[in-house]
Amino acid sequence: MKLVEPKILSGFMELLPKDQILFNKMMDTIKETYESFGFLPLDTPIIEYSSVLLAKAGGETEKQVYQFKKGDNDLSLRFDLTVPLARYVAMNKNNLAFPFKRYQIGKVYRGERPQKGRYREFYQCDIDIIGNDSLGVEYDAEIPAIIYNIFKKLNIGDFLIRINNRKLLNGFFNSLNINYDNSYILRIIDKYDKIGRDEIIKLFKDMNLDNEVINKIMSFIEIKGSSNEIINKLKELNIDNEDYINGLNELEKISNLVKVYGISEDNFNIDLTITRGLDYYTGTVYETFIKDNYSLGSVCSGGRYDNLAEFYTADHLPGVGISIGLTRLFSELKERQLIKPDNKSTAKVIVIPMSENEFKFSIKVSNEIRNNNINTVLCNNSTSFKSNMKYANKLGIPYVIIIGSDEMNNDKVMLKNMTNGSQELLSISEVLERIK
Amino acid sequence: MKLVEPKILSGFMELLPKDQILFNKMMDTIKETYESFGFLPLDTPIIEYSSVLLAKAGGETEKQVYQFKKGDNDLSLRFDLTVPLARYVAMNKNNLAFPFKRYQIGKVYRGERPQKGRYREFYQCDIDIIGNDSLGVEYDAEIPAIIYNIFKKLNIGDFLIRINNRKLLNGFFNSLNINYDNSYILRIIDKYDKIGRDEIIKLFKDMNLDNEVINKIMSFIEIKGSSNEIINKLKELNIDNEDYINGLNELEKISNLVKVYGISEDNFNIDLTITRGLDYYTGTVYETFIKDNYSLGSVCSGGRYDNLAEFYTADHLPGVGISIGLTRLFSELKERQLIKPDNKSTAKVIVIPMSENEFKFSIKVSNEIRNNNINTVLCNNSTSFKSNMKYANKLGIPYVIIIGSDEMNNDKVMLKNMTNGSQELLSISEVLERIK
Repeated sequence: MKLVEPKILSGFMELLPKDQILFNKMMDTIKETYESFGFLPLDTPIIEYSSVLLAKAGGETEKQVYQFKKGDNDLSLRFDLTVPLARYVAMNKNNLAFPFKRYQIGKVYRGERPQKGRYREFYQCDIDIIGNDSLGVEYDAEIPAIIYNIFKKLNIGDFLIRINNRKLLNGFFNSLNINYDNSYILRIIDKYDKIGRDEIIKLFKDMNLDNEVINKIMSFIEIKGSSNEIINKLKELNIDNEDYINGLNELEKISNLVKVYGISEDNFNIDLTITRGLDYYTGTVYETFIKDNYSLGSVCSGGRYDNLAEFYTADHLPGVGISIGLTRLFSELKERQLIKPDNKSTAKVIVIPMSENEFKFSIKVSNEIRNNNINTVLCNNSTSFKSNMKYANKLGIPYVIIIGSDEMNNDKVMLKNMTNGSQELLSISEVLERIK
Repeated sequence: MKLVEPKILSGFMELLPKDQILFNKMMDTIKETYESFGFLPLDTPIIEYSSVLLAKAGGETEKQVYQFKKGDNDLSLRFDLTVPLARYVAMNKNNLAFPFKRYQIGKVYRGERPQKGRYREFYQCDIDIIGNDSLGVEYDAEIPAIIYNIFKKLNIGDFLIRINNRKLLNGFFNSLNINYDNSYILRIIDKYDKIGRDEIIKLFKDMNLDNEVINKIMSFIEIKGSSNEIINKLKELNIDNEDYINGLNELEKISNLVKVYGISEDNFNIDLTITRGLDYYTGTVYETFIKDNYSLGSVCSGGRYDNLAEFYTADHLPGVGISIGLTRLFSELKERQLIKPDNKSTAKVIVIPMSENEFKFSIKVSNEIRNNNINTVLCNNSTSFKSNMKYANKLGIPYVIIIGSDEMNNDKVMLKNMTNGSQELLSISEVLERIK
């Protein structure tokens, strides 16, 4: 038979078991934290009607979409979890309780040119809080609390959540009376972290902005200090613009509440260079950085938007949400050796019978351990003891139980701790005590 | 703006939160049981090269595959989890410990004609144990133990795991000297449960089998009794065929070991009408039925195969595995009202401040409860107390904590049990005791 070469597409992540265990652990941490704040699970189809999924898209996004026909249907693979959420809320509004807090963790697809750190299939871990007609700004303060809890538990280094407010920025730009759509300026400022202040100024000059205006923008976005200090400096600017004043009020309220959540300025700050490139944010915006690894870019971002589902319904559905791109995060952390597998196996114990005579007793032993909620592998008797020990080693299971005829006849087992090499002859209940 | 009608494709399941919670709970039960036997997680791409994914496929399967082009690549969505496993093991053989026990829970795609109970996107929950060159038959006895544990925990009714052996069947058919490929006969017998003995006999007659042969087949597949009784009757037939003898030995060994796993004949039986339609099984085959709902068909099936990855590698990789089609199972159980949501929310507690004055205190209270691993929703103060109570009710959260100024000033809260309506004024530590 002619063999087909087994391979996968570039831009698709596939892991060995020990890495998959680590990946799943991170995903579970995110999921559990989302649930701890009462977010409800959602699982939408990966394939949808192109007409529905691409109702809003255009430009770059649409080019990247996996779109195809099946029968008469024009289909697309979801490219994010926000569009399906909008469609879902529009469809199911009467059956949902608002504010609707949902999380979704799932794969999305973008046919980007393959390059380092870019994936064509990747997990997004999203939460959104959707209001029916209105949504109190207090919810914007819950988001940093959630980010804080996740990154504390992920334990991948000290981190900083930076927030800003689009209303504040727009109000400020409008007060400058410049003849540009603010989104141009926002997109330039968004690059501040990556390309630095000199390049930013150059880009502003390319736009033919006055030096005076450029100076004003630069001194504005470079206002530094504690949240309180920044709020005070922003107040002192005395800018008489409704958006500016509203944005500033929101920023003040949110940063005060974030402190009540127990998050210190070490992990949370106002940063006026944070804009988020995407157009649809209308208020608070969030980015999260690992302090010793700023070059990772933001590892958790999001913001407030005015109207989630305007393409599907006339209902007004404001919301706030964040997303973690777990596939890219995992791959970068692994490469930088900021994470490494701690458990190579899902099992804590492996039971090895010395010969066929002890196999039935070994079944009973492994049953009993498993019934005490300890994951247990049972080795077969048809392979040699030596190769079973090799197997145990290769699997990296921390405890090996060896059962020979002596052990069996005394209703005991030999427990070997693979970390320190110690061996003890124990009863099953003693084993359970040792291992738990 | 012209609105796009929000809708999803037929044959795709999407749930409301309370049903999603229930679905996830079932999925977690399956996952935890798989892990309790030491199976390792695997997550393969949903999109693969068509040349790889369809190396073996043909006929009906290939017609159902979602296949499309992106750039120069001919791509397909996975239609099961077995082919990706074969490809994965062939690719990563040197990095895996054998026997390789892996589980995978994920969505697969088949563009079937939509009909009741059929899905185009559905979850499969698979385990397989893959040997390197050989795999002891004892592993075939572990499979029923896993099925047993899952369906005990799922608690969807009394169930019966039925097993048979393809070698035994083939040996028996070969001993009859009939001029047919055995697979024709196997496929007819496979329908025994659905269409009944009379129709089976009719189908055999259509094949022009002798009455004598038909009688022999019928008395063979209708052998009943306890495992021991069936084994003895099969021995008494004294059929001198190597496959028959090997199959019988396997069946005897497996059914004896299954008892050692603590599974009684109430939940486990040999049934000679079980054949599994698919050609690739070569030894033990499994089906699982809910006793009061046989019409559901098998809810967990699988078997032993000789060579997993023959299309990708010259290595000989025998294995045994099972699959649960969770999407269809869930949908049928729900329709028959055999399952119903017990938790409408992921949260156990909802905290409601009476007014803005108590909001900061409410943040602290919800923080403290959450830090004790109790999922907690915090209500906003910008909505009225009345609408917050309505919200709590609609979410179906079992405990409501109400905080007014009196409560706050005494560092206490009002705990309302939504199940029995009782209210108590308690300190936070008392609340934690009540709820845990």
